[in-house]
Amino acid sequence: MTTTLDATHGIQLRSWVASANVAGCDFPIQNLPFGRFRTAGSREALRIGVAIGDQILDLQAAGLVAHNDMNALMAATPAERQALRQQLSEGLREGSSRQAAWAQALVPQATVEMAVPCQIGDYTDFYTSVHHATTVGKQFRPDNPLLPNYKWVPIGYHGRASSIGVSGQRIKRPQGQTKAPDAAVPTLGPCKRLDYELELGWFIGQGNAQGEPVAIGQAEQHLFGVALFNDWSARDIQGWEYQPLGPFLSKNFASTLSPWVVTLEALAPFRAAFERDAADPQPLPYLDSADNRSQGAFDITLEVLLQTARMREAGEAPVRLSATNSRRAAYWTPAQLVAHHTVNGCNLQPGDLMGSGTLSGPEVTEAGSLLELASGGKQPVTLPNGEQRTFLEDGDTLILKGWCEREGAVRIGLGEVSGTIVA
Amino acid sequence: MTTTLDATHGIQLRSWVASANVAGCDFPIQNLPFGRFRTAGSREALRIGVAIGDQILDLQAAGLVAHNDMNALMAATPAERQALRQQLSEGLREGSSRQAAWAQALVPQATVEMAVPCQIGDYTDFYTSVHHATTVGKQFRPDNPLLPNYKWVPIGYHGRASSIGVSGQRIKRPQGQTKAPDAAVPTLGPCKRLDYELELGWFIGQGNAQGEPVAIGQAEQHLFGVALFNDWSARDIQGWEYQPLGPFLSKNFASTLSPWVVTLEALAPFRAAFERDAADPQPLPYLDSADNRSQGAFDITLEVLLQTARMREAGEAPVRLSATNSRRAAYWTPAQLVAHHTVNGCNLQPGDLMGSGTLSGPEVTEAGSLLELASGGKQPVTLPNGEQRTFLEDGDTLILKGWCEREGAVRIGLGEVSGTIVA
Repeated sequence: MTTTLDATHGIQLRSWVASANVAGCDFPIQNLPFGRFRTAGSREALRIGVAIGDQILDLQAAGLVAHNDMNALMAATPAERQALRQQLSEGLREGSSRQAAWAQALVPQATVEMAVPCQIGDYTDFYTSVHHATTVGKQFRPDNPLLPNYKWVPIGYHGRASSIGVSGQRIKRPQGQTKAPDAAVPTLGPCKRLDYELELGWFIGQGNAQGEPVAIGQAEQHLFGVALFNDWSARDIQGWEYQPLGPFLSKNFASTLSPWVVTLEALAPFRAAFERDAADPQPLPYLDSADNRSQGAFDITLEVLLQTARMREAGEAPVRLSATNSRRAAYWTPAQLVAHHTVNGCNLQPGDLMGSGTLSGPEVTEAGSLLELASGGKQPVTLPNGEQRTFLEDGDTLILKGWCEREGAVRIGLGEVSGTIVA
Repeated sequence: MTTTLDATHGIQLRSWVASANVAGCDFPIQNLPFGRFRTAGSREALRIGVAIGDQILDLQAAGLVAHNDMNALMAATPAERQALRQQLSEGLREGSSRQAAWAQALVPQATVEMAVPCQIGDYTDFYTSVHHATTVGKQFRPDNPLLPNYKWVPIGYHGRASSIGVSGQRIKRPQGQTKAPDAAVPTLGPCKRLDYELELGWFIGQGNAQGEPVAIGQAEQHLFGVALFNDWSARDIQGWEYQPLGPFLSKNFASTLSPWVVTLEALAPFRAAFERDAADPQPLPYLDSADNRSQGAFDITLEVLLQTARMREAGEAPVRLSATNSRRAAYWTPAQLVAHHTVNGCNLQPGDLMGSGTLSGPEVTEAGSLLELASGGKQPVTLPNGEQRTFLEDGDTLILKGWCEREGAVRIGLGEVSGTIVA
């Protein structure tokens, strides 16, 4: 899985799509993320596109694929994917002989509606931030915050695929059973502790056959790419329902993905060592490799923003609630998640989604949920306009952003995922 | 959801397919379950069929459907389903004018291979047997066997859809992390406590839109039918991984379904009152209705059989390990599961699967898992040939059977689901 940089990452590379060359653009020619789109408001079949600046290259119109089945595209081998990336990079760069033809295959992003990037067969959510696990563990189990298995087992559980939507989703406040500690019996009612979770969503590329584990050395060959993921959570419902089989209705009413999947190839310049504290146990051999130690992690900056209804009405921009970095937050690498998920023979399929779990960094300002930022409802967050939040209120729009930057590489973005709470 | 009996349930009804009239047959003309099949050993596209005696009526060949998309068939309204059942019943009964034409659309079951009945989008497993929950709870949490939420919340969690196979599946013994209570660190190795779980699998018919709960009075309009379901479980892996987010690799290596889905219409004569002990709390209003109380439950006899490799080699038939009845075992009805699953707005889709959870009746001889029958490995089960089992061994074939019978109705069967453990 050794990551190599090639000409498609070149810092000098510029596109004939002018908007892709603007500093700070999420989608320069070094990125080339995949998504599904159609004309806004239409009922057209979804098409596969690659974001370039403020445009989308329609892959079928450009003659690059013969179908519009994203899952089939995701099932390609890494070599096939690399070849497609090479074609895209060459055809979109300044001076390409394809410019005239491909210009006809460009669609302005402003004119489309995006869909969930692929058909998600199974969705698994992990729990990779030790900081999140510890802080939340303290609230649910004060005497026992971090369970003994945490530093050995990449804890994960299956989630709901049907209710995953794309950025822009309107989230109806769920109702559910809750029981106050001092109440004799539970009641049904609207969630009072509605929260978001800042996550990354890793998409599976090639699958594995049932009964055939994926070794950690091959794990990244099964990863297609990453998007931003908001795992909306009803904390009061979760507290009452989650024992002994885990979260269920507290999570499955909705989750929201950003529309563009940034590939592992695009992320190559932003790999990082997988670091652990000296006191932490070494991973078991099936979760360990030299490559995973030296570059198994990803250096992705993540940001959470909130715009309340009052801010929106006053024309005020969203404000930052927190920011962190996936490398600081995650105790396990995506390769480790794949190796663990399949060690028992479980079969992954192209388009399956693995959530990272809430990515909270070590500092309180890096928390990936309101549950953490507002200490379980005890310390409200005060916004610049004076409003306070312990949990999300109707009309709130929550936005996650992500990007990669480092010296000597062109910044690439994951775009954003937003969702608005409605009554 | 009031259940009505009509002519399709008539006790006098006989089919021109002679094998369907044999006493004790699982698939008399009163049953008419749906499944997907193709010629054994072929790579043909799957076809939709209805089991009748030892034959299958190919629905497309009989001119009854224009496609072979079982999920589309499942999405039909109850009225459409009832109309199809009526057509099938009339065409297959003795003296039907369709006999000559439909005889051409019959395929002997012995010549086909069956598939999972439909494409399963999401699979949810519930935990509906209070007897199972109590017995197992004692093993995992001696001081706290039945958690306070159990009698209020139909506990469920999401499972893995990709690894669900059909009867006849060979189950590779999974490997995974386990930690002995006295060990300092966990190790990776083959599961040593491999178990089965006797379950029913309820298939969703019509879906519901995201954000739109299904009221209990409408819940059964969203249920298509039922199959037998074995939720293979690696108990040692489960014990180490399941806190705090529930079972994961201990379950998702494989689950096995019986091939025929028996519809709610076929089950109409076998409805039963939903009974609770006087000491049990009444369900919250969203889980309660007069119909659910009077006939929300299903009277399905269930049986677990085991054939070890030694028995197979000696030509000995499988032996019964236990037997129970879904009505005795389940604390929640299927309608309650649908109402609960959607109360937060979660969207169900045609072909989704809801497992009942292990169906153990109140007596020890009614336990639906070896974990219970052999007291967590402490009291081996002795088989007639002298072999003993605490958990499943390589070469063991585990078979679940199910059927409905009562005075004044023709017996109908669910068929069987078998699976064999391999090293």
